[in-house]
Amino acid sequence: MSVLVVGSVALDTVETPFGNADSVLGGSASYFSLAASTFTDVHIVAVVGEDFPKKHLDMFDSKGIDTGGIVKEKGETFRWQGKYGYDLGDPKTLDTRLNVFETFDPELSDEYRNIDHVFLANIDPSLQLKVLDQMNSPKLVACDTMNFWIENKLSELKEIISRVNILMINDSEARELSGEPLITNAARKIMNMGPERLIVKRGEYGALMFSDEGIFFAPSYPLEKVFDPTGAGDTFAGGFMGFISSDQTIGTDKQNLEKDFKKAVVYGSVLASFTVEDFSVNRLSELKNHEVDTRLQAFMKLSNMD
Amino acid sequence: MSVLVVGSVALDTVETPFGNADSVLGGSASYFSLAASTFTDVHIVAVVGEDFPKKHLDMFDSKGIDTGGIVKEKGETFRWQGKYGYDLGDPKTLDTRLNVFETFDPELSDEYRNIDHVFLANIDPSLQLKVLDQMNSPKLVACDTMNFWIENKLSELKEIISRVNILMINDSEARELSGEPLITNAARKIMNMGPERLIVKRGEYGALMFSDEGIFFAPSYPLEKVFDPTGAGDTFAGGFMGFISSDQTIGTDKQNLEKDFKKAVVYGSVLASFTVEDFSVNRLSELKNHEVDTRLQAFMKLSNMD
Repeated sequence: MSVLVVGSVALDTVETPFGNADSVLGGSASYFSLAASTFTDVHIVAVVGEDFPKKHLDMFDSKGIDTGGIVKEKGETFRWQGKYGYDLGDPKTLDTRLNVFETFDPELSDEYRNIDHVFLANIDPSLQLKVLDQMNSPKLVACDTMNFWIENKLSELKEIISRVNILMINDSEARELSGEPLITNAARKIMNMGPERLIVKRGEYGALMFSDEGIFFAPSYPLEKVFDPTGAGDTFAGGFMGFISSDQTIGTDKQNLEKDFKKAVVYGSVLASFTVEDFSVNRLSELKNHEVDTRLQAFMKLSNMD
Repeated sequence: MSVLVVGSVALDTVETPFGNADSVLGGSASYFSLAASTFTDVHIVAVVGEDFPKKHLDMFDSKGIDTGGIVKEKGETFRWQGKYGYDLGDPKTLDTRLNVFETFDPELSDEYRNIDHVFLANIDPSLQLKVLDQMNSPKLVACDTMNFWIENKLSELKEIISRVNILMINDSEARELSGEPLITNAARKIMNMGPERLIVKRGEYGALMFSDEGIFFAPSYPLEKVFDPTGAGDTFAGGFMGFISSDQTIGTDKQNLEKDFKKAVVYGSVLASFTVEDFSVNRLSELKNHEVDTRLQAFMKLSNMD
């Protein structure tokens, strides 16, 4: 089993109250694929510029992540620069340079078109639609988005939302997309837009999953060190989709459907808890399976009533 | 078994995006005692003015809450006026009139001094100390506070914190009290100030309990209608302390200690979820036991992995 991710591979410059990182590996597809690679084979579709360091591609390779779909174009890699305040909440974007990403036009190989699990990371909904149109009957498609697309490409966004199985967005995006301040009402409105399942990410406050079966809540793991929240949401998505696509019975066995998706949410939260412990993908790229297992146990204890 | 609460009984004027309430029953002791009365006998120590409507005292009486410790003084009742924004987060205080509360000087009867469970609601830490000094070896004392006392009465506050079993504060108060932005680090510093247990309330994002045994997390119940968040924290405290003092084995049986306190956190969250559904104590004062049971079941399902 495997998962395809379409998103950004970027070079980030990040400042937090705990330090700085200059032109480090970032982008939604980077975080997603490293997290998902814990569980399954991952194929990245993305674009980088001529300045993109080969060491990052080598690192993906070393993790068994297929980088054959990362196209190198003339020009510079997508660059984002942001600064976090003391609360480590939403960062202030200091600079965004789309560079080669501006003309990103993903064309999928036949192999990629037949992959069963797809994650459309936060990119222009028109591109998300274009990718989805190329897929041959995938089993499960999830997508992310951001406020910018809610405000500027709402009709395309609504179309993609109506066609995916799972929408994963954060709290403020859910409220903005629905126009509802209460998250349960926001969720109901968004579910009416078409997805079978909605996951609302709330940063350090955990994640909520809405489906016809009800609501499931997973806390965030309370950490003793947080250096850089960048990529936590994409890591969550990677842990989630990675687990779902790790075994072909997952997500299809009706009796265990909700249980499987709940486990996926917990794995998403567990993986995300590592990402924020260091800058860039540093923690994620060094992650050992036993560390994931240990934190999973600690995580399960958090909400255990016994 | 019974619980003693020392706090405010007030008349609140509240504006939310969903409506207004003028001079309605409020105050920490009001919310606390109604929530705790679901489980146990409650005795209120507070002060009201000559303008305090008798119907509120009658309502407490009808719930079996002992109002013998509510002193009526010359002058007006403590009044608070606040306005909530669309996110229903921290309200803007428009007016605070301490009135008779300014000279509140709680003197406990012999009966009250022998009560085993005590909640020192958010009042001047000097008064909290004065009450605690009057108690004869209580089994369990919990207290709340607010940013104002952290900023203006820190030494008295630290003394009371060092002498109580449980401190219950909200997220921003924990960060301010400790000077630590990360909640786990904040919790460690606060635990070093003396309490055996720290409960951090996070509004719609749930509550965390820290003890030597580790961390327990309970989500907030995702509601479909929220009219007025006023009193949610005090209701949480009432549900928590009410459950703990409902049976003399609770909180003393070492084997079940953590389990009991976890249940208390869940009951606190369940009770608080009703308070916010209407203005003032309207929902809480009409609450039926079967409604609490039903919501408890739904609540347990929220984090249930099966």
